[in-house]
Amino acid sequence: MTRPDTGRVAPERRRSPGAPDPGHVGGGTPADAAPETGTARIAVDLLGGDHAPAVVVDGALRACQADPALQLLLVGPLDAAGEATAALPPADRARVRTLTPGDRPDLARRRGSGARSGPAAPAESWVESGVRAAVLAVAQGQADAIVSAGNTGATVTSAALGLGRWPGVRRPALAAVLPTVAGRLVLLDVGASVDPDEQTLGMHAQLGAAYAASVHGADRPRVGLLTIGTERGKGDRLRRDAPAVLAGLSLPAGARYVGLVEGNDVVHGAGADVVVTDGFTGNILLKGLETAYALAGPPTTASAADDPPPRAAVLLGVAGTVVVCHGAAGPDDLAAGIALAATLHRRAAVAAIAAMIPLSEVTHDK
Amino acid sequence: MTRPDTGRVAPERRRSPGAPDPGHVGGGTPADAAPETGTARIAVDLLGGDHAPAVVVDGALRACQADPALQLLLVGPLDAAGEATAALPPADRARVRTLTPGDRPDLARRRGSGARSGPAAPAESWVESGVRAAVLAVAQGQADAIVSAGNTGATVTSAALGLGRWPGVRRPALAAVLPTVAGRLVLLDVGASVDPDEQTLGMHAQLGAAYAASVHGADRPRVGLLTIGTERGKGDRLRRDAPAVLAGLSLPAGARYVGLVEGNDVVHGAGADVVVTDGFTGNILLKGLETAYALAGPPTTASAADDPPPRAAVLLGVAGTVVVCHGAAGPDDLAAGIALAATLHRRAAVAAIAAMIPLSEVTHDK
Repeated sequence: MTRPDTGRVAPERRRSPGAPDPGHVGGGTPADAAPETGTARIAVDLLGGDHAPAVVVDGALRACQADPALQLLLVGPLDAAGEATAALPPADRARVRTLTPGDRPDLARRRGSGARSGPAAPAESWVESGVRAAVLAVAQGQADAIVSAGNTGATVTSAALGLGRWPGVRRPALAAVLPTVAGRLVLLDVGASVDPDEQTLGMHAQLGAAYAASVHGADRPRVGLLTIGTERGKGDRLRRDAPAVLAGLSLPAGARYVGLVEGNDVVHGAGADVVVTDGFTGNILLKGLETAYALAGPPTTASAADDPPPRAAVLLGVAGTVVVCHGAAGPDDLAAGIALAATLHRRAAVAAIAAMIPLSEVTHDK
Repeated sequence: MTRPDTGRVAPERRRSPGAPDPGHVGGGTPADAAPETGTARIAVDLLGGDHAPAVVVDGALRACQADPALQLLLVGPLDAAGEATAALPPADRARVRTLTPGDRPDLARRRGSGARSGPAAPAESWVESGVRAAVLAVAQGQADAIVSAGNTGATVTSAALGLGRWPGVRRPALAAVLPTVAGRLVLLDVGASVDPDEQTLGMHAQLGAAYAASVHGADRPRVGLLTIGTERGKGDRLRRDAPAVLAGLSLPAGARYVGLVEGNDVVHGAGADVVVTDGFTGNILLKGLETAYALAGPPTTASAADDPPPRAAVLLGVAGTVVVCHGAAGPDDLAAGIALAATLHRRAAVAAIAAMIPLSEVTHDK
């Protein structure tokens, strides 16, 4: 496991005078800052997602056309990658490279052997090897970030093995950003860790607070624990044990644990900037709310001014920039996920977040 | 524990020719049937809820004025109950009775003794004894149903002890009805059982299927298990163990287990009429979605024709009609909860549901 380059710091924020919240990673351009520029090379898993590769190709093209400094490494079968490049204007084609897992002798060997040798084996191997190949491309410096709409567990495992976890992080977290009446909040975990213990929730509180401070520019972010009632002792076993751990943490960026929040608070957003929960509950709440917002509009009155946050989650706790889109993601979701990955890379956000985590307080193993 | 009168059957449905789904328990009048009539005596816990008693009194008055055959037993302090009756037109006052927990010697004795004797003890005892008194009023035949917006755990415990659980039901379920794009669905549990095992989920599947068939008139209701992905093996420990139990059940009313559903399916509602989950996840998803719908409107295109379902949950598995409103419920929510309790009583819904549960298949104790 490699410690990321924590010597890097987040780039200085461009801030309009009086703007209270300069940070914004959204589906488009921050309201008060020019978009970050500089090359961003994003490895995109072409075979990830329910409607792959067509939707992924479509999303990659949209992202490419929206951001002239974006370079794509399309990882997957040659025909799909070729279709993508052919659809681009000739001047843009140089920004798209392709990588088929079969190009890599080590991956080809794994595909050709092993227990899975039935009729379904080749396709399945392709899917699995796609995200592995994308991770390896980042690990070996051929790309700056990974975007996948494929199986979350496979992406998390591949990223943890291929890029390394940060010291002290046994279980990485997937962090999603939801629009709220008050603005937005970071919800984590949304699917990486479905049976966490209270120590894992404590680490995720650190990661979420660092994300809110570093990426959203949140000042002294408030961290809440998601549960079913604010009376003492409500909730399941994990929620009865976790508050003591969370209250005892020294959180980064002046963040503070503000106690218990409920499902309605994730919509209003008035009480917390970061909401910590297990990956099972978080995934179900995220998919429910995102679908409700897609049908009826997001809850925030600020939504007219700001673009809604991308419907994509960031993997925190691994030494690299990894963005996970929903399996059911559409082309715009994929494009937003790719744009998010590019912005995080340009801000060196992952290194900045890693540098904010007080590793000495973490229980490495139980 | 008393077995409810399962010899009673649900009253015959009034059904317009060709109407596919005659059942409707909502905030108002079913689209295709006259409202059930007949006296319904509802015990209302005046001190339950975040804004009690004012909001409860207000809600009770609205319910009373909307339904001439409703009779209320307001349980709580005399001043609040007196305020409620004074606000009614003289002709309606005879329909409202009051009960203060201090009226009952057994409750007064419990309030006056015990470990809680600090300054906060009297108020707390009042709150706890209110729901107990309401339950006793139903158990002793002075009321037909209970409505409380108070602490869910206290209500569930009081109801289970005071009314008895059905044979085979170790853990009652709170069932909520959510609007969906496809119409509506039953979500359970939403807070009664936060650490269930797979046998409890199996019993809740029975209860939910019986509710959907009996109250909504659902034909062969489809029962889904809420999880975070439909690939085999996804989810936490409970969700990996539960499908085998659910698939092996013989569900009532021709209901069938249709497998795994996700958070987005609870919004679309296309795949299931009943969604089973643990009370922790269900409570959080319910509060999130209800809040989103309150801000942006419900998802269903049918909402113009149908009233939205009441924001209240029904306790299934105890021998009586118990409706739980949110602690943050407003007057209209309380009124809708009272109307729901009256409708369930008039349909003898609880007895009908109890009669549909195949107790012989249930594991009584692990």
